Amino acid sequence: MNRSVIRHVTGRILMLLGALMLAPLAVAFYYGEPAGQKMSYAIAIAAAEALGLLLAYKKPAQLRFYAREGLVICALVWILMSLLGALPIFISGEYPNFVDAFFEISSGLTTTGASVMGNVEGLYHSTLFWRSFTHLLGGMGVLVFALALLPKGNAEGVYILKAEMPGPMFGKVVSGLKSTARILYAIYLIMTALLIGVLMWAGMPPFDAVCHAFGAAGTGGFGVKNTSIAYYDNANIDYILAVAMLLFGINFNLYYLLLLRKVKAFFRSEELKWYFAIIVAAGALICLNIRPLYDNVGRMARDVFFTVSSIITTTGYSVTDFGRWPLFSHVVLLLLMFGGAMAGSTAGGLKISRVALYSKMSIAELRRQREPGRVVPVLFNGKAVSRENRAHLMGYLIAYITLFFLLVLITSLDAPDFITAFSAVVATFNNIGPGLGVVGPVGNYADFNAVTKLMLSLGMIAGRLEIWPIIILFSKRSWHKA
Amino acid sequence: MNRSVIRHVTGRILMLLGALMLAPLAVAFYYGEPAGQKMSYAIAIAAAEALGLLLAYKKPAQLRFYAREGLVICALVWILMSLLGALPIFISGEYPNFVDAFFEISSGLTTTGASVMGNVEGLYHSTLFWRSFTHLLGGMGVLVFALALLPKGNAEGVYILKAEMPGPMFGKVVSGLKSTARILYAIYLIMTALLIGVLMWAGMPPFDAVCHAFGAAGTGGFGVKNTSIAYYDNANIDYILAVAMLLFGINFNLYYLLLLRKVKAFFRSEELKWYFAIIVAAGALICLNIRPLYDNVGRMARDVFFTVSSIITTTGYSVTDFGRWPLFSHVVLLLLMFGGAMAGSTAGGLKISRVALYSKMSIAELRRQREPGRVVPVLFNGKAVSRENRAHLMGYLIAYITLFFLLVLITSLDAPDFITAFSAVVATFNNIGPGLGVVGPVGNYADFNAVTKLMLSLGMIAGRLEIWPIIILFSKRSWHKA
Repeated sequence: MNRSVIRHVTGRILMLLGALMLAPLAVAFYYGEPAGQKMSYAIAIAAAEALGLLLAYKKPAQLRFYAREGLVICALVWILMSLLGALPIFISGEYPNFVDAFFEISSGLTTTGASVMGNVEGLYHSTLFWRSFTHLLGGMGVLVFALALLPKGNAEGVYILKAEMPGPMFGKVVSGLKSTARILYAIYLIMTALLIGVLMWAGMPPFDAVCHAFGAAGTGGFGVKNTSIAYYDNANIDYILAVAMLLFGINFNLYYLLLLRKVKAFFRSEELKWYFAIIVAAGALICLNIRPLYDNVGRMARDVFFTVSSIITTTGYSVTDFGRWPLFSHVVLLLLMFGGAMAGSTAGGLKISRVALYSKMSIAELRRQREPGRVVPVLFNGKAVSRENRAHLMGYLIAYITLFFLLVLITSLDAPDFITAFSAVVATFNNIGPGLGVVGPVGNYADFNAVTKLMLSLGMIAGRLEIWPIIILFSKRSWHKA
Repeated sequence: MNRSVIRHVTGRILMLLGALMLAPLAVAFYYGEPAGQKMSYAIAIAAAEALGLLLAYKKPAQLRFYAREGLVICALVWILMSLLGALPIFISGEYPNFVDAFFEISSGLTTTGASVMGNVEGLYHSTLFWRSFTHLLGGMGVLVFALALLPKGNAEGVYILKAEMPGPMFGKVVSGLKSTARILYAIYLIMTALLIGVLMWAGMPPFDAVCHAFGAAGTGGFGVKNTSIAYYDNANIDYILAVAMLLFGINFNLYYLLLLRKVKAFFRSEELKWYFAIIVAAGALICLNIRPLYDNVGRMARDVFFTVSSIITTTGYSVTDFGRWPLFSHVVLLLLMFGGAMAGSTAGGLKISRVALYSKMSIAELRRQREPGRVVPVLFNGKAVSRENRAHLMGYLIAYITLFFLLVLITSLDAPDFITAFSAVVATFNNIGPGLGVVGPVGNYADFNAVTKLMLSLGMIAGRLEIWPIIILFSKRSWHKA
């Protein structure tokens, strides 16, 4: 383990984080917020720069590193960023204790959007902006951003990119690592800017449009109103956001194909077909189930489309209290939460490509059962999935299930009923936000105790980083000197 | 597909079933039950013999068959046995409709023990006996029994044995197939007979002892009292049954090792160690959690030991209403339900060996993440698990999860809350019996509608036969002529 590289890289990212916190500080000045509010952000910036400088000051003797270091850097950076990012909203006194603040910012960075704050309308603009800004940062990834910025690209960065980018298979869009990171971020930021414009056109105030666009881009879900998007009660806004969330749930590599005018290749993507098929199927099942609750079919279609889009992309905005829908619809939504959207997007969950591959592996096994000894390849996008990748996929599924039930077990010590415990873990581990029961779309996570909040925060980070970095960070064996 | 062999073998098993139904008929005569009751069993016997004779009459031209036929025979036999076994209790009018009767007998044969009958004390002795007798038959397997009986063993029988015997790897204790089946059945019946004796010694009436011993042997769970084993309120009976259930949850191949005085080999079994470790861990967690509910530590220990034994072996007898335990204990019990007991025992669930192997495969993946390219073997009982077996294991897990959530989705249309829908499927698919919520230890499955009952019945059979036979029976492709 190359500890000096870990120290150095982590330090540089924290300095970057400090610089990024200038944005909410600027918002505090713009809205003329009280001195205490400005001071909170200033202190946090100073803390991030000081700690970052301390860690990054000494250049490492040996710059080479491997997968292990990449995973550890990734886990460490995400935990430290959540801790430092929680500082301003804790110091300002808006969040009652540090655990709540940590939960909120982990939730923001991991683009979960689960909140301990019932009355978000009571928060300052700077804090609302910071919460939403963490979605934007965490969506595409802070480390990817750092790679895009760094002047010299080195080959080792691939291990960091791999650790932070969600999805079962890592595909660079172009050969250069830095170019890949820059292209992805450029597409991401341009799409976000367009969304801000369209939301303003539809009548949303500029500040709200910025925050909600950040939340949709990162598939996060923090809003600026207590009733989320339902507050605006505007069909255009609902449809714009529903479509936008779906677009941010698509693999960004596919957008690069579109830029290259490879439209056919875009539509040949097998994952894309599964994604839309699942959206249509889930929407149809829920409509059939909740039809009796609605007089107006158009309103029902709008609510269902928005909710399915919000849940499958693991965003978590709401326009209706789906907690009042019947049990069958809840189970459909829970299944969508597990699935998540496409790999290489900003969404959480297992990712559609994994779900598709798992299905195919099971069907292959059915054939082997019928005719033992037969060799059945598993194809994806027309190519056979390698034995190595199948082993990765299966190892991931088991780790996912194990961690999931461990979190349910811990949460059950502190939850009033099974649906609350189960859905709280589904909604945080998969980075959605609202669950069902007490943590449903009109509730929040405030009532859990500090231990549960900490564990769910770690669960959110583990879910965002796809488990391994967090386990490797906390396993003693990883820290042996190489 | 060799259809004539399927027809012939299925027919012969149904004739055997008819013969076995002479037992409850004899009970009806012994207790001098009304003519209608005797007639119900007589009609069912006649129906089984007639249908069996019709199917078996024509000898197949070609006797050779393969895995596919073995799986289809197995699925077909189990569904037909449940249908024919339901006849007497439907004709007699004790069960209000045929779906209820079918649910009850599927539940019996699959050794689930889930019931639609709240007042079992109102049933005739013949029916109580028949319900419990189906546990004994289904526990070790009806087809295994048939193989033990058949005069000439042929090599193809291995496909039937494989399809019916639970567990990830099929191990014959001796080289001959018929001898294997006979040895397993002999151990099974002798253990059951001993249990009847011990229960009578502890003060249980002879009829009750027979029925409960059948239920414990098959890890079924049908009782003869409305309050299950709590009725006797007898510490000896509780401890005897708790130990007995655990013993029937052990792989029967290990007992054969004991018969051969290979005691060391018995204790070297890795699955056995996992089994006891899980029992101790689960018991300790529940004790810590429910401690405030009990004044008497001894009574708590007895209730927890019995409940953990009953749930991990997927039996489902109860001495206390664990539905009133806190949520954390419920989650522990739900996890035990998924796990089940050892492969090659009469228990349901995933089986401990699978759980152990899945854990090991995930740890291997952790090592590969840390050092990409490293080859990490998965060892079980000191031997490397083959790539082929790992593929089988993973294919099974995905099929299991898919079918599980499909059943939850269907059940959620007809359940009052999530814990009822979720636990009803956990408890039937894993062949336990009582779940939580409405289907908890003091409740039953009567309130579900006919569709849900039918689906759960198929789920029980799919769970007992470990999924593939049922899927292959219902997939059109299997029926192509070979």
